Amino acid sequence: MSEYCYANKQIRLISEAGVPVTDLLVQRGYGIFDFLRVAKDKPLFIEDHLDRFFHSAEVMRLTIPETREEIKQIVATLIQKNNFDYSGIRMIIAGGDAADGYTIEHPHLIVIQAPLAEPTEELPTTGIKLATYSYQRQLPAVKTTDYLMAIWLQAWMKEQGADDILYHNNGSIRECPRSNFFLLTQEGVLVTAKEQMLNGITRKNIIKICETHHIPFEVRELTIEELKNAKEAFITSSTKRIIPVHQIDAILLQPQYEDSIARKIYDWLKKME
Amino acid sequence: MSEYCYANKQIRLISEAGVPVTDLLVQRGYGIFDFLRVAKDKPLFIEDHLDRFFHSAEVMRLTIPETREEIKQIVATLIQKNNFDYSGIRMIIAGGDAADGYTIEHPHLIVIQAPLAEPTEELPTTGIKLATYSYQRQLPAVKTTDYLMAIWLQAWMKEQGADDILYHNNGSIRECPRSNFFLLTQEGVLVTAKEQMLNGITRKNIIKICETHHIPFEVRELTIEELKNAKEAFITSSTKRIIPVHQIDAILLQPQYEDSIARKIYDWLKKME
Repeated sequence: MSEYCYANKQIRLISEAGVPVTDLLVQRGYGIFDFLRVAKDKPLFIEDHLDRFFHSAEVMRLTIPETREEIKQIVATLIQKNNFDYSGIRMIIAGGDAADGYTIEHPHLIVIQAPLAEPTEELPTTGIKLATYSYQRQLPAVKTTDYLMAIWLQAWMKEQGADDILYHNNGSIRECPRSNFFLLTQEGVLVTAKEQMLNGITRKNIIKICETHHIPFEVRELTIEELKNAKEAFITSSTKRIIPVHQIDAILLQPQYEDSIARKIYDWLKKME
Repeated sequence: MSEYCYANKQIRLISEAGVPVTDLLVQRGYGIFDFLRVAKDKPLFIEDHLDRFFHSAEVMRLTIPETREEIKQIVATLIQKNNFDYSGIRMIIAGGDAADGYTIEHPHLIVIQAPLAEPTEELPTTGIKLATYSYQRQLPAVKTTDYLMAIWLQAWMKEQGADDILYHNNGSIRECPRSNFFLLTQEGVLVTAKEQMLNGITRKNIIKICETHHIPFEVRELTIEELKNAKEAFITSSTKRIIPVHQIDAILLQPQYEDSIARKIYDWLKKME
């Protein structure tokens, strides 16, 4: 299979692309990325992803020579050359080589495309179980490549019989490692955490949907105490749109999928793509 | 210059070694390492470093096929082939490729050697300035490749006119990003932090020296409040042995280098090599 990526300033075969063993990304874990879904040949919400990508880069002082337009062109070229049916695009900025092994000198861009399953036509009816874990991501507003805790916790998560992890910081809910979290109160208000987490693009689109369709919502501090009284809960990501949550730790949620708010929002999200 | 490393199960030119862009180390920052100094052809305290390396690997569930003896052989081969006068060896275990981009499946070993300045004959007489910063490393007992905060803080550190950063967690001193921290009280007791930091090999050797030479020492919680009354302070690492500290934030320390405990320990450390 000829799968192309962009690395070392060239479109090249992914099997021939490598990050130097001396790179700050390899030696010091210093890098950022963004990930977007591609439907046929359409990179979804690419402007939003590029906004966030450049914001992450700025915060982390990772300046690359490629312009926004050039990155869009690289993405378009990969989509055309790889010709996947459904896929994901990962844009990475690596810290680059450093003479002293420590100072940011030559950050560089890597763009990878890989096949991805198409989200289901309608909201999945099988929910997942989350296990809560007290952990605050460092530099949480930045999409860094730091998933040390997420990967390390996979074994623990499986022991809990859970499908994903819900991070909270001393009881204040943050996010899942690769998704944002939403809760519907018994009063019918959709709530998502406000601070110290990554601002997901799907989260942003859901807030837009709530505004357009007059769904009561609040972006505020959300505590794990509130999970007990949730009418509904779900997680959101660019890859899956929405996945319903049927259990958090020992708390069972039994939303009526037919009538759920998640199902309505899922349809609206689909129409936005 | 022909500089050799070990990657993809072979001794190869470092310029030809790369970590796949799909590797968990690249995409998710999942990896551990250890770093040791080589004096001529002697890898210093390699057994201690290997002990820590395998401990890090075990905690992080990074199993590699190479045995301890094989790694020692790889290190010996690199030392012989590279023939550097004075150097450092970096052993890395990368998370490896993962079908789902998330699950540890194929961790692999990388060993790099690079020239390094020889530590000075005697303790350096010019001390450095530290700036304190509240930050707790994640998985602190493990030497992960996560230096996100350390690298990110370099710009802030320079603004403070500091040479290195001293991490504390709500006032409880931990470590510097690449060194351990020691303080000498006015009563002549050498103190170093006990928990939630990396157990340095030089720190371990200094504790041994204190035991052998009957220097009063304590391994306990150490607070930033205590910095004000310090008689002496220094940082320790495999690369530099000891660097004296002359200032921490606004606190000036004026140890008599001729008569300092650091100077004596430095000489003993040298003899241990």
